[in-house]
Amino acid sequence: MGPTDLRAHIRDIPDFPKPGIMFKDITTLLANADALRTVVDSFADRYRGRVDMVLGIESRGFIVGSAVAYALGVGLALVRKPGKLPSRTFAAEYELEYGVDRLEIHTDAFGHPCRVLVLDDLLATGGTAGAAVRLVEQLGGEVVACAFIIELAFLAGRAKLSPCEVFSLVSYE
Amino acid sequence: MGPTDLRAHIRDIPDFPKPGIMFKDITTLLANADALRTVVDSFADRYRGRVDMVLGIESRGFIVGSAVAYALGVGLALVRKPGKLPSRTFAAEYELEYGVDRLEIHTDAFGHPCRVLVLDDLLATGGTAGAAVRLVEQLGGEVVACAFIIELAFLAGRAKLSPCEVFSLVSYE
Repeated sequence: MGPTDLRAHIRDIPDFPKPGIMFKDITTLLANADALRTVVDSFADRYRGRVDMVLGIESRGFIVGSAVAYALGVGLALVRKPGKLPSRTFAAEYELEYGVDRLEIHTDAFGHPCRVLVLDDLLATGGTAGAAVRLVEQLGGEVVACAFIIELAFLAGRAKLSPCEVFSLVSYE
Repeated sequence: MGPTDLRAHIRDIPDFPKPGIMFKDITTLLANADALRTVVDSFADRYRGRVDMVLGIESRGFIVGSAVAYALGVGLALVRKPGKLPSRTFAAEYELEYGVDRLEIHTDAFGHPCRVLVLDDLLATGGTAGAAVRLVEQLGGEVVACAFIIELAFLAGRAKLSPCEVFSLVSYE
């Protein structure tokens, strides 16, 4: 059997969540055992031995993150939306199209020193991943890379995350 | 090395999300590589060969669900809060302390026939898991079991899920 074509398992949903947006739906990819395994193994093979912790960004980043952490044999830390984490947190803001939003991390999310792999499903403008990177650094961690299933390259989020390594499995130009 | 004591990795947070509630925080468990592996392997070993799909309930159920799906070599389906899933959905309501809430599943979340393992982090009153079970059945799937990291046995959620198999790794009486 040849390598799984991940792109073929991603579904385009027009006008979601609002008119004019072509949403990249990964539920069809996750539902396929071969595609899910390919995604997880691709990240795990690339970062094996290079990271001490995976950081998953709420909520689709949790999906990728936990399986990759398990495959790598490391722990999983969470970055969540405001008010969801029950213990003491640090927060970072990021810009939306209109206004700002905020992400939080537990102040004891990981020990020191810690090499962290930031994982999310999708890289768009890089706002959320950038906030996650700042939170890792605020905790004294080292971001080894930001990795994504999908990169919307035309939104140039990669540049915003510089000088971090950015790795994506499927890129849309 | 002896078996990992999962209970020792779960943190009690008093008065979260509101006064009088003792919140069971699993972020400390997820952050520990041995504990994360123990959780995932415990579910995977029990259900290997018995399920065709794992169903994760938003959002902490995604964390357990994806790693277990990966370990089992099956796909992952998602049950999400209203408005999050981009394609056509079925919905099920469940009761809250005050009012009702709703969960959704894509109408094409899995094929037929399908033996489904419903996964979430915590069994409390069983409202969300019960709604997930109804959604699986509405799609023509068979729920093999509902499995949880933590069961708050004193809330009797297990009875509400009868006759489904209920499996939990850590139970609080």
